[in-house]
Amino acid sequence: MKLPDLNTPAALVNVPRMQHNIRRMQEAVSRHGVSFRPHVKTSKCQQVVDLQVAAGARGITVSTLKEAEQFFAVGVTDILYAVCIAAPKLAQAAKLMAKGCQLQLITDSLEGAQAVVQFSKTHHVQFSVLLEIDTDNHRSGVKPNDDLLIAIGRCLHDGGQTLMGVMTHAGSSYSLNTTDALQAMAEQERSLSVLAATRLRAAQLPCTVVSIGSTPTALSAQQLKGITEVRAGVYVFFDLVMANVGVCSHNDIALAVLTTVIGHQEDKGWAIVDAGWMAMSRDRGTQNQLTDYGYGQVCDVNGTVLHGFTISGANQEHGIISFNDGKPVSTSIEAQQSIMQKFPVGTQLLILPNHACATGAQFPEYQALQENGSIETWPRFYGW
Amino acid sequence: MKLPDLNTPAALVNVPRMQHNIRRMQEAVSRHGVSFRPHVKTSKCQQVVDLQVAAGARGITVSTLKEAEQFFAVGVTDILYAVCIAAPKLAQAAKLMAKGCQLQLITDSLEGAQAVVQFSKTHHVQFSVLLEIDTDNHRSGVKPNDDLLIAIGRCLHDGGQTLMGVMTHAGSSYSLNTTDALQAMAEQERSLSVLAATRLRAAQLPCTVVSIGSTPTALSAQQLKGITEVRAGVYVFFDLVMANVGVCSHNDIALAVLTTVIGHQEDKGWAIVDAGWMAMSRDRGTQNQLTDYGYGQVCDVNGTVLHGFTISGANQEHGIISFNDGKPVSTSIEAQQSIMQKFPVGTQLLILPNHACATGAQFPEYQALQENGSIETWPRFYGW
Repeated sequence: MKLPDLNTPAALVNVPRMQHNIRRMQEAVSRHGVSFRPHVKTSKCQQVVDLQVAAGARGITVSTLKEAEQFFAVGVTDILYAVCIAAPKLAQAAKLMAKGCQLQLITDSLEGAQAVVQFSKTHHVQFSVLLEIDTDNHRSGVKPNDDLLIAIGRCLHDGGQTLMGVMTHAGSSYSLNTTDALQAMAEQERSLSVLAATRLRAAQLPCTVVSIGSTPTALSAQQLKGITEVRAGVYVFFDLVMANVGVCSHNDIALAVLTTVIGHQEDKGWAIVDAGWMAMSRDRGTQNQLTDYGYGQVCDVNGTVLHGFTISGANQEHGIISFNDGKPVSTSIEAQQSIMQKFPVGTQLLILPNHACATGAQFPEYQALQENGSIETWPRFYGW
Repeated sequence: MKLPDLNTPAALVNVPRMQHNIRRMQEAVSRHGVSFRPHVKTSKCQQVVDLQVAAGARGITVSTLKEAEQFFAVGVTDILYAVCIAAPKLAQAAKLMAKGCQLQLITDSLEGAQAVVQFSKTHHVQFSVLLEIDTDNHRSGVKPNDDLLIAIGRCLHDGGQTLMGVMTHAGSSYSLNTTDALQAMAEQERSLSVLAATRLRAAQLPCTVVSIGSTPTALSAQQLKGITEVRAGVYVFFDLVMANVGVCSHNDIALAVLTTVIGHQEDKGWAIVDAGWMAMSRDRGTQNQLTDYGYGQVCDVNGTVLHGFTISGANQEHGIISFNDGKPVSTSIEAQQSIMQKFPVGTQLLILPNHACATGAQFPEYQALQENGSIETWPRFYGW
């Protein structure tokens, strides 16, 4: 199967680029002597995860229990569910553990810990739990200095659970864009996690795991003393948000949407394509970054970036391509060429996504373009 | 099955509300003596479409050929594919027609028309085609006064295709919010479509169908002289964007995401829920409207709106609920109550979506809550 045979829109994965990204991250983490546990919420695809495991990953991270179930069903046993657990989900977690899955849960509240202990006693099951630490003030987690940390740890430990340690995700790294700031955030993520671990141990509580990570910090860390494990997800495909952060180039982005030109509004300089927000997702993650790519960066069908052309607007099944290089229109050669001549109806284009996790999720399958030009269909799942 | 038994996040459809919305739209169109052809891209669900057809719909509108295939497979034969056709999709369309589907295509370009004629001659198939008219300058379509309209019509007619007529979608109605403006846009959509039809007929070209519609204009039209058919989609569920436009109330919104509280950041006044952007979608359609609902309006589990509480931030599987009623925080009773007391871990909440088409698309199935309190699972599909 070749590109012209694909139904559009299609989610095209450039497998050599993806393999490069997988090797790069695995090496970046391994050089510190630390385990790497990829977050599979980005791809939700067995073929992708198989390649991550083959490259050296130890266990996986998931964002839903459905991901845990799906990957356990194909042989992955060591799984961290990295969203705080609430009572209604414990039965589903216990069912998976009963089948042999080594599932780790997380919590950042006494209520969450108490729910785990109570379920454990009622149903005679022992959970493995990490405490989520807030190392960058961006979302969830207990502050490493908060006495609540010890209280939650003690609740779990005294309640008969396996207290594994601590974990954090410095998601605020997504809003940075300099090497200095990224290195500083990586060190903050590391040091505050180690602080939390030290406080737990000082309170005579077990803490063997110190797990940190985000794609930007994982690639920026200068040292990982005291850390046992790093997690990252979006690196496997990368995207325009990560390009703006500065941890990849356009040529590293391994996911693109193949689309077809279906019309024009010549007076406006618009080409209309069949990749609207249903294909690209509504993610506008680059809106407040250095470069705003609209709903995506336009490339020709070979992947060559057509600078200045973005999806500037999107409806459900319509994307609007227009030219904006930030310069006055009259100075630009591209803008002087008719959009109809440049992109006739029927033209195929590739669109790089703002956010690979969001764009991938819009598709039931990836079209995986191999080094030799052949294309395999790789299914992906969704839902909860 | 009752709400507490549902895995969260879940897409909950309030069936009595939806039935009310279906009846309301059907009556609004029928009173003009005009056919109604619902756009099924909103639900992509057989059970929903069955109810629309039972209420009087004649044919359906689709945004993808996959929708056409799926609904033809369950007995719908009269289908308008309302996105301009390009050559690569003609084989798929012809295959469906060969099975007996009365598929109508649209185009707004000579290139598109020529591709249809060429495929028709090569493959001995006759297509039924409408010309897309641009009546509000917002996206696709030929201007009703443009000579291109006649040229495209003649290309199709002389090329042996069945020229059905004209169609338009005044999508810019989504940005309006007064009765006067909506009525004026509805009249503009009507009159410019009739103008296009009149010009085609004056050029001795056939034009039996004059099809218009968007949810806001369909509900606002004062007269539909010269129109044969109205189309609308999102009305079936409604959403916060439509509430801001002014064509529904919060209590008409028939789709909500059921979610569970999984944590807090008390110093920030945040409750964290398991409905992130993967559940709500990234659609921020209310961002520039009268009321910005963030990623959704929070309601209690019975559907009572908790004014001022919205999903103010979202990550993939995390939503952040915070309070903002537009007043200084200190004046508000709600803001003075601890977020942990108000929404303890494990609390179930319902979140009204910005855009029902986008939120529904994130889920493999709807949980359909019937009048008697029972819940049925209704599958929906996605992809192309």
